[in-house]
Amino acid sequence: MIKVGIVGGTGYTGVELLRLLAQHPEVQITAITSRTEAGLPVSDLFPSLRGRIDLKFSTPDDAKLTECDAVFFATPHGVAMAQAKELLAAGVKILDLAADFRLQDVKEFAQWYGLEHSCPEILAEAVYGLPEINREAIKKARVVGLAGCYPTSVQLGLAPLLSQKSTGGSQLIDGTHIISDSKSGTSGAGRKAEIGTLLSEASDNFKAYSVKGHRHLPEIVQGLKAIAGHDQIGLTFVPHLTPMVRGIHSTIYARLTEVGMSVDYQALYEHFYQDEPFVDVMPAGSHPETRSVRGSNGLRVAVHRPGNGDTLVILVVEDNLVKGASGQGVQCLNLMFGLPETTGLTQIAVSP
Amino acid sequence: MIKVGIVGGTGYTGVELLRLLAQHPEVQITAITSRTEAGLPVSDLFPSLRGRIDLKFSTPDDAKLTECDAVFFATPHGVAMAQAKELLAAGVKILDLAADFRLQDVKEFAQWYGLEHSCPEILAEAVYGLPEINREAIKKARVVGLAGCYPTSVQLGLAPLLSQKSTGGSQLIDGTHIISDSKSGTSGAGRKAEIGTLLSEASDNFKAYSVKGHRHLPEIVQGLKAIAGHDQIGLTFVPHLTPMVRGIHSTIYARLTEVGMSVDYQALYEHFYQDEPFVDVMPAGSHPETRSVRGSNGLRVAVHRPGNGDTLVILVVEDNLVKGASGQGVQCLNLMFGLPETTGLTQIAVSP
Amino acid sequence: MIKVGIVGGTGYTGVELLRLLAQHPEVQITAITSRTEAGLPVSDLFPSLRGRIDLKFSTPDDAKLTECDAVFFATPHGVAMAQAKELLAAGVKILDLAADFRLQDVKEFAQWYGLEHSCPEILAEAVYGLPEINREAIKKARVVGLAGCYPTSVQLGLAPLLSQKSTGGSQLIDGTHIISDSKSGTSGAGRKAEIGTLLSEASDNFKAYSVKGHRHLPEIVQGLKAIAGHDQIGLTFVPHLTPMVRGIHSTIYARLTEVGMSVDYQALYEHFYQDEPFVDVMPAGSHPETRSVRGSNGLRVAVHRPGNGDTLVILVVEDNLVKGASGQGVQCLNLMFGLPETTGLTQIAVSP
Amino acid sequence: MIKVGIVGGTGYTGVELLRLLAQHPEVQITAITSRTEAGLPVSDLFPSLRGRIDLKFSTPDDAKLTECDAVFFATPHGVAMAQAKELLAAGVKILDLAADFRLQDVKEFAQWYGLEHSCPEILAEAVYGLPEINREAIKKARVVGLAGCYPTSVQLGLAPLLSQKSTGGSQLIDGTHIISDSKSGTSGAGRKAEIGTLLSEASDNFKAYSVKGHRHLPEIVQGLKAIAGHDQIGLTFVPHLTPMVRGIHSTIYARLTEVGMSVDYQALYEHFYQDEPFVDVMPAGSHPETRSVRGSNGLRVAVHRPGNGDTLVILVVEDNLVKGASGQGVQCLNLMFGLPETTGLTQIAVSP
Repeated sequence: MIKVGIVGGTGYTGVELLRLLAQHPEVQITAITSRTEAGLPVSDLFPSLRGRIDLKFSTPDDAKLTECDAVFFATPHGVAMAQAKELLAAGVKILDLAADFRLQDVKEFAQWYGLEHSCPEILAEAVYGLPEINREAIKKARVVGLAGCYPTSVQLGLAPLLSQKSTGGSQLIDGTHIISDSKSGTSGAGRKAEIGTLLSEASDNFKAYSVKGHRHLPEIVQGLKAIAGHDQIGLTFVPHLTPMVRGIHSTIYARLTEVGMSVDYQALYEHFYQDEPFVDVMPAGSHPETRSVRGSNGLRVAVHRPGNGDTLVILVVEDNLVKGASGQGVQCLNLMFGLPETTGLTQIAVSP
Repeated sequence: MIKVGIVGGTGYTGVELLRLLAQHPEVQITAITSRTEAGLPVSDLFPSLRGRIDLKFSTPDDAKLTECDAVFFATPHGVAMAQAKELLAAGVKILDLAADFRLQDVKEFAQWYGLEHSCPEILAEAVYGLPEINREAIKKARVVGLAGCYPTSVQLGLAPLLSQKSTGGSQLIDGTHIISDSKSGTSGAGRKAEIGTLLSEASDNFKAYSVKGHRHLPEIVQGLKAIAGHDQIGLTFVPHLTPMVRGIHSTIYARLTEVGMSVDYQALYEHFYQDEPFVDVMPAGSHPETRSVRGSNGLRVAVHRPGNGDTLVILVVEDNLVKGASGQGVQCLNLMFGLPETTGLTQIAVSP
Repeated sequence: MIKVGIVGGTGYTGVELLRLLAQHPEVQITAITSRTEAGLPVSDLFPSLRGRIDLKFSTPDDAKLTECDAVFFATPHGVAMAQAKELLAAGVKILDLAADFRLQDVKEFAQWYGLEHSCPEILAEAVYGLPEINREAIKKARVVGLAGCYPTSVQLGLAPLLSQKSTGGSQLIDGTHIISDSKSGTSGAGRKAEIGTLLSEASDNFKAYSVKGHRHLPEIVQGLKAIAGHDQIGLTFVPHLTPMVRGIHSTIYARLTEVGMSVDYQALYEHFYQDEPFVDVMPAGSHPETRSVRGSNGLRVAVHRPGNGDTLVILVVEDNLVKGASGQGVQCLNLMFGLPETTGLTQIAVSP
Repeated sequence: MIKVGIVGGTGYTGVELLRLLAQHPEVQITAITSRTEAGLPVSDLFPSLRGRIDLKFSTPDDAKLTECDAVFFATPHGVAMAQAKELLAAGVKILDLAADFRLQDVKEFAQWYGLEHSCPEILAEAVYGLPEINREAIKKARVVGLAGCYPTSVQLGLAPLLSQKSTGGSQLIDGTHIISDSKSGTSGAGRKAEIGTLLSEASDNFKAYSVKGHRHLPEIVQGLKAIAGHDQIGLTFVPHLTPMVRGIHSTIYARLTEVGMSVDYQALYEHFYQDEPFVDVMPAGSHPETRSVRGSNGLRVAVHRPGNGDTLVILVVEDNLVKGASGQGVQCLNLMFGLPETTGLTQIAVSP
């Protein structure tokens, strides 16, 4: 059994990790920390876990995290990098659900997150946690910075178009003017007392936010450059808040190059993802729905070319708390410990 | 492996059965029928099942249901009773999610459901599918008429108060004037094209329905009489439609007798359900939420006595599609085939 | 034009007052205060009012409230009573949307609201703001303590059964064991940053709360006693949170006395409310929906007697922010200033 | 008083017309027709209108529509064109909420709507009902084909960028590759018994639809060409279904030309719409919300230029049933009958 600790388990990625890990056959949750809730049984805070998790929140000091095999950080950014060094020294593998180990450029990190990176040397060895792109590196990693929720959907939506693996170096699309119009449920905003995401405010309502620049923009661009193998990437990324709890739907627009005009994209996508257990290329003409993956680790993608013109429209859905966060975390954990990648991740979506 | 067939798998109880049975380690789904969708892959109708169920809908004639070990009816009432005789003759066990085998009184059945019962002799041997009350009978049953969604919540909410087992024959409450104010999500209305349950009609809205008499009323009363061991039962049952998908919340009001005034109800409920894997008596003062059991087979109950007066308030929550229908069906299936009762039913609620 | 000030206009009753008063032909809003938002244009906080309200929030000190003809308090309890004396001295009429002037018994106020009443002498002259019951007193009042949202629905639902006016002193129901199972949208919880009413928490969810005792209980009981003209009133009141924004639905259960068994309740209700502009007695057999009054000052009531038995079921719907709060406030304002009662309150419900 | 008839008043645009017209000081509704509901009081079908509309549905034959001054068609396409000739001959003005008089090209109409146009000569004189673009022509029109819901949002979002009036012939954007990613509430799908828009299906869910081509695409393109004064327009239009009742949010992406790089778009938009009563250009940096216009005839637009790059992002919100349909109809009616344009359209949005 892998002994797993969770730092900061009081948010939505925390409770989702608990749901998944409690059903994972090879994991034992040995510690879960929260400064604010120390002493409280986990199932008092999250009644959905009554009878399934028999643990109390402990303070970070009492948690004996160094005795774990792996520790998840389900915390705001800035926490994981403060504790990483000690954990690594104790031989503990780290999976960060926040942004501390996502952006390789410390200046960019400082610019978007408003604080200096405290362990650039660990950042240098950290692996970006997006298994469909980075599987082999994740297997060997000591530190994984898990891909963000929006970035997972946009990168996996575009990977077949940009990857050297599938395009053989041809530019199929104009990578400098990609658009991702992305929509998220409110759980993406976290379990925080805020007026803007009250049911009274956010239901029967729809709006964009952060149009001038969202923190996930540099992460996505970094990832697309890596996938493409070049730096000629430009992205307009507009996130929106949708009156639902779970789910991200990214609608991605890309303009074809002349070379790109003669490609069969349905075949390209199906081939690219043929061996992926969690990526499902939908039949031609499909419109995937977020609820079709609710509660599961699946991501679904459909590729359209309206009017056979020069604009591709790629539709991607995922559950932001599973494939966009905690499920992806478990997927990486499986890879890091040599388990079959789908272990503990076979939940079927709950629908309706 | 138990070979299971499903008749009429295009509704919400059907897709929920598929979700549960596809993850059940001892079941093989061998047939699923639908006249209207025959030939269609199940996962085309229910994209949440893509990659998990590799079956097509077949016509009832092609389905070879007589080769199954057990057949679920996830159909409107009237279908199961028409096919029961042939299936029983072939040695197939029957679990009906509709009402054909719930009401023992054929006159009452005719009155509430508007058609004559076509096989009273099979009805006579049918067992009411509510394991917490009827476990031993279910184990031996060939035909189980699964308890309805509302009836499950009301009967399990009241059983500790009425059962000879716990009350030793004392009347703790005035059983002649029980009130159940019950609220259901819209999935209880089924997957039917109707205006009243459109999102545009039912969201941001709340209403009662069928106040003059709902079909579940005679079923609940029959069940409460059986639990109580006497006929002095009167119930006012008012169902309401709530703008959510899954979940039933029954708020039950019962007036205490003089004997009943001195009982510790928290202890009574905890003791009554101490060995039940799916019934969770909440700590004193709790207000269980429907989402805490969403997607799981759990039912939660809390008992209150406001102002220490003579009125008990019992709060019960369940997922109407799981413990209120398909999950209860699997629970009964497990009992009928000698499996541990929780087999395939260990899903943790999806929350948020 | 009546010069109106609003103290504490940053909550939902505040913005709803603004919506109604901005369209009121006889009112000029001259001041709106908020300590936290002083200096901010009202339409920056509430974009729905852009172009319709050209006012900034001011501090209570700058607001010159004493120059108003009437002042609404859309504040937490405790604020109105602190400022009432000075306003009354300046000849300003007071309408309090909070609880400071609802409960006549200062001990009860202290017990339920946790603070001493600071001006019992003003409380003594305050009139309870429920026009259908108290119309004449409101016309002459200097201080009106507006009825709460739940209390409005329960009292108007029961008034025909309890009122001397309609019953002529007969007890039609057992007033000592009334049950009100009430459901509210989340706007009733106010515009407050709290986790429990986040969309991620409260949507697709249903729960009871405050079963052991809600602050509206003593208010309702006080009101029912006044309506009945005697003290033999007992109420079990269970509020529930429904995943919608606006609306209250109270389902009220009352047991008939022998005298009550022979009464035509449809006729009784229709007669009782025949002249009321905002109370609509629905046709026999109706199930009123909350959305049918959304955004309007209407309250709808239907009376049922299932199975012609001895239990009456009364269904009441209202918009908690309009008839349950700000609309009722405007209705009282009209009465206090000699205007037709419906002035500025003719909005038709928004549906769907 | 203008005598107004409504053909086909049983859908959402019908009930919304009734809500608006019942409060319109210069309109008398004299007839409302429905073949299926003939004889039924309007307020029985739409309880929100109880006490406000005292009319019954009549058959088209009994309705004496030729005695009206104006007739609205709130019907599926194909109905208005069948009755237009007779009504015009009787001197009745026609406002069609469906598509019969939107597309000037009868071939295009046949292609997208699947039927031949039956009165091309009337189509030739019909005016497109989008007052901000076509005000003078609407004033003189006998037949108005009201702009569709999505088309209103996209055209008004783009008009300042394309209009000769504001651009003086310069191409500020590449008009051949415009993208509109549009999101609608479910009321846009109409009051029809369908499975896809059940609350159980559409809530907590998000999906695109009709990516290969939606009927509003040719309408929008026709309109944009007219606004631009040239034919070099290409649009990728992707509509999405959002789990809410009312509201459209269009997120529009346009690439700037070199000339366009030096323009102040905030000023351009504010100037273009400075005299419009129903179009509100939001302050720079705003993210308008659909609920801020819910129930009102307002449309709000914000223009962004992320990173000061070459891609403009225009955000547009409207209530699809008001500015996107029935409110726009009333606005056109006012123009056609010489009334102030805002008559009967001063409702403030209902929020929360």
